[in-house]
Amino acid sequence: RINGDRLWDSLMEMARIGPGVAGGNNRQTLTDEDAEGRALFRTWCEDAGCEMGLDQMGNMFARREGADPDALPVYVGSHLDTQPTGGKYDGVLGVLGGLEIIRTLNDLGIRTKHPIVVTNWTNEEGTRFAPAMLASGVFAGMHTQDWAYAREDADGKKFGDELQRIGWRGDEEVGARKMHAFFELHIEQGPILEAEGKDIGVVTHGQGLSWTQVTITGKDAHTGSTPMPMRKNAGLAMARVLEKVDEIAWSHAPHAVGAAGHIDVYPNSRNVIPGKAVFTVDFRSPDLEVIRDMENRLRVAAEDIADEMGLQIEFEKVGGFDPVKFDENCVAAVRNATERLGYSHTDIISGAGHDACWINRVAPTAMVMCPCVDGLSHNEAEEISKDWAAAGADVLFHAVVETAEV
Amino acid sequence: RINGDRLWDSLMEMARIGPGVAGGNNRQTLTDEDAEGRALFRTWCEDAGCEMGLDQMGNMFARREGADPDALPVYVGSHLDTQPTGGKYDGVLGVLGGLEIIRTLNDLGIRTKHPIVVTNWTNEEGTRFAPAMLASGVFAGMHTQDWAYAREDADGKKFGDELQRIGWRGDEEVGARKMHAFFELHIEQGPILEAEGKDIGVVTHGQGLSWTQVTITGKDAHTGSTPMPMRKNAGLAMARVLEKVDEIAWSHAPHAVGAAGHIDVYPNSRNVIPGKAVFTVDFRSPDLEVIRDMENRLRVAAEDIADEMGLQIEFEKVGGFDPVKFDENCVAAVRNATERLGYSHTDIISGAGHDACWINRVAPTAMVMCPCVDGLSHNEAEEISKDWAAAGADVLFHAVVETAEV
Ligand SMILES: NC(=O)NCCC(=O)O
Ligand SMILES: NC(=O)NCCC(=O)O
Repeated sequence: RINGDRLWDSLMEMARIGPGVAGGNNRQTLTDEDAEGRALFRTWCEDAGCEMGLDQMGNMFARREGADPDALPVYVGSHLDTQPTGGKYDGVLGVLGGLEIIRTLNDLGIRTKHPIVVTNWTNEEGTRFAPAMLASGVFAGMHTQDWAYAREDADGKKFGDELQRIGWRGDEEVGARKMHAFFELHIEQGPILEAEGKDIGVVTHGQGLSWTQVTITGKDAHTGSTPMPMRKNAGLAMARVLEKVDEIAWSHAPHAVGAAGHIDVYPNSRNVIPGKAVFTVDFRSPDLEVIRDMENRLRVAAEDIADEMGLQIEFEKVGGFDPVKFDENCVAAVRNATERLGYSHTDIISGAGHDACWINRVAPTAMVMCPCVDGLSHNEAEEISKDWAAAGADVLFHAVVETAEV
Repeated sequence: RINGDRLWDSLMEMARIGPGVAGGNNRQTLTDEDAEGRALFRTWCEDAGCEMGLDQMGNMFARREGADPDALPVYVGSHLDTQPTGGKYDGVLGVLGGLEIIRTLNDLGIRTKHPIVVTNWTNEEGTRFAPAMLASGVFAGMHTQDWAYAREDADGKKFGDELQRIGWRGDEEVGARKMHAFFELHIEQGPILEAEGKDIGVVTHGQGLSWTQVTITGKDAHTGSTPMPMRKNAGLAMARVLEKVDEIAWSHAPHAVGAAGHIDVYPNSRNVIPGKAVFTVDFRSPDLEVIRDMENRLRVAAEDIADEMGLQIEFEKVGGFDPVKFDENCVAAVRNATERLGYSHTDIISGAGHDACWINRVAPTAMVMCPCVDGLSHNEAEEISKDWAAAGADVLFHAVVETAEV
C-alpha cells in the first residue's frame, strides 16, 4: 500500500503555490505559478532518484529506471495546471499519485522490469490556451507543435512564447517516446461515485467533446438614442443561442451535456449595445453521433437567430475529441487491482476530458477515478478525503506495478 | 457666424489623441489619453485669452471675462472623454463648439456683458466608472464627492485615485459656481434629424435612464462531468433575463428602449459552468412611470428565473436620472437662434443622457443637437458633416451670446 499521509502532505504543499481566492488554486498553465509548481515537482522527483526529461511542449517525464532499461516504460501521470478558480486535486492528484508510486517502490526496495515514468502534461485545462489537453494532443500527433505554439491567450500572448518565458521549454522532440502503457488517476469531477458509495471508478470510456467558438457581429450603438427597431444587438442574439444550447443538450440528456463557460461581449460598456459577442459552446456525449447532432443543430439554430436579427455569425471549432474506449488490458489491470485491494468499485465513463484520452491513441491506456465531494470540480471548493486519495493511489500503484512487472 | 473650418480642424486635432482601432477614439476618462486631451484643450483656451479653473472633480472651466465681471457667467460645454470604441464627436463637439464661440467673439472683438465659461465635464460616458455624467452629477448635488471618488473601474481602481494620478484634480469646491445659464451642443446620436432632413434639433426634453446591475450567483462546475440536472448555470439565467429585458422594452416601444451593454461571467473559462454573471440593464424612456414599470417588471421576471433555477440574484441601481424638461427661456433662445440663422429645425427629445440633464437642476439649461450619419454613436464609425457641425456651433453661438447680452 502507498503512504496516504505522505501523498496528502504533498498535495497540500503543492496547493500552496498559486493559491486561489477561496481555498482553491489559480495556477494556470505557463504562468509564474506554473513554473514554481513544476520546480517543486522536479525537486521531489530528483529526491526520489528519478531523472527528469523535458520536451519541447514542456511536458515533464520523471524516470525511475527498470531492471530491463530497454523495456518500454510504463507511464503514469496527469497535469499540474489548474483552472483560474480551480481545486487542489484536479490533475495534481494524478501527478503526485504517480510520484507516490515511485516513493513507495523506493520504500519497499522494489525494482520493476519496465522503467516507470511520471508525467506532468502541459496545459491540460485549456482555460488560458484552447484547446484542453493541448500538449498531450501534440504528443499523440493530434496537433502540430507549430499550431500549438501559436495558440493565444485572451491577452494575445502565444503559447510558445510563454513556455519559453517561464523557462520550461525542453529540447526533446514531442511524441518521440514509446510507451508500454499509460495510467492516469483523476478525481471523478462528477457525482456518481459518491452517490453510489464506491471507492473507485474503473474508467472504461471517456465521453467526447466539441468546443465551438461562436462570433456574432452586430453593430455597436448607443443604448439610449438608438430606436429598438434599428438595433443589431449581438448580446441579445447570444442570449438566444445560449437558450438553444441548453435546449439541445437537454434533448439528449442524460447522454449529453452542454453549456457556454466563456462569454465576452464588445465593447462591454454599459451604454453601448454590444456590436460583437464571442462565446464557446461546450457539448459532450459518450456517443459521437449525438455530438455531431448537437453541433449541427447549434449551427442551424444560431444561424436562424442571427439571420432573423440581421446579424453576422461565424463558427470555429476550437477543440474536440471523439469518445474514447480505453484499452481492455489496462482497464482489466485497474479492475483487478481494485478487487485485490478490496475497494468497492464500479465501471464509469469519464465526463471530463483527460490527457489519457489522447495518449490512448498511441499507447494502451486506462484511468482510475476516485470520488469528489458533491461531484464538484472546476471550483475552488473542490474537495476529496484523504482516504479517497489513498485508495485511488493504491489502485494506481498496483495497476502500474503489475503492468511494469516485478 | 462661427468659423466652421477652424472648428473642424480642432475636432480632427483632438481626435489624434487616444485613437481607436477603427477610425474613432478610445480616450476614456482619467486615462493618460484623457490627460493629454485636457492639456490640449487648456492650451487652446489660454491661447484664446481664457483663464482656466479646475475643481475637485476635474471639471474644467475656461472663463472669458464679461463687461460686467459680477454678472453670473453663461456656461457652455460638454465632455472630452469617450467610449472605449467611441466616435470623434460625442461630447467633443460640445466642448470645442464652446471654444469656437470664444474664438469667434475674439475675432469680432465683441465683449458680452456676462462672462462666458467653456466647460469640460469629467466622466460623462460612465463606461469606465459608473454612473454616466458623474462629475456634473456631483456639481448638481446629485452625488457626494466621496461617493464619486470611491467609484471603481473593472480593475478595482478608484475614481479619486485615478483623477489624482493623471494630475487633473483641482482645489476648487465642486458646485460652488453659480450659472446664469448653461448650453450644451451635442450630436443627436439617433436617426431622427437626418431622417427628417433637419439641420438642428431644439432639445426640449431628455429621456430618463435607469441602470440596474444584476448579479446572479450559481455554482462554478465542470462543463463535462456535471449532469444537466445538477447545474446552477448563472450564464444561462443571464441569457433568460436578457431576453426579458428586450421583451419589456419592446412592450413600451417606441416610448422606451432597453438593453445590456455590460456583461461578464465568472470565471469565464470554456470548461467551467459560470458560477456568477454580472450585467447592467439600461432602460430609458421620456416617461418616468414607464421607467418604473420596466424596473419593476425586470426584478419580478429576473427573480422568477433565478428562483426557478435555484440561483441567487441581487440588484443594484448603479445609475439613473429622471426625465428632464429643459428651461423654456433657454430653449426659446436656441429656437430663436435657429430661426434667425435660417436653419431647418425640429423639437426633439434627447435619447441619451447629457451633462445638461444634471445642470438643468441648478441652472436654466438647454441643448442644441445636430444630426449624425445613420444615427450611429458609441461606435468608432460615428460621423457628422462639417456643415452640420458648423450649423450646430452657429446656433450655440447665437443662443449663448444672446443670453450673455452684448
Ligand atoms: N479533467 C479536466 O477538467 N480536463 C479539462 C478538459 C475538459 O474540459 O474536460
Ligand atoms: N451622450 C452620451 O452618450 N452620454 C452617455 C450617457 C448615456 O448613456 O446616455
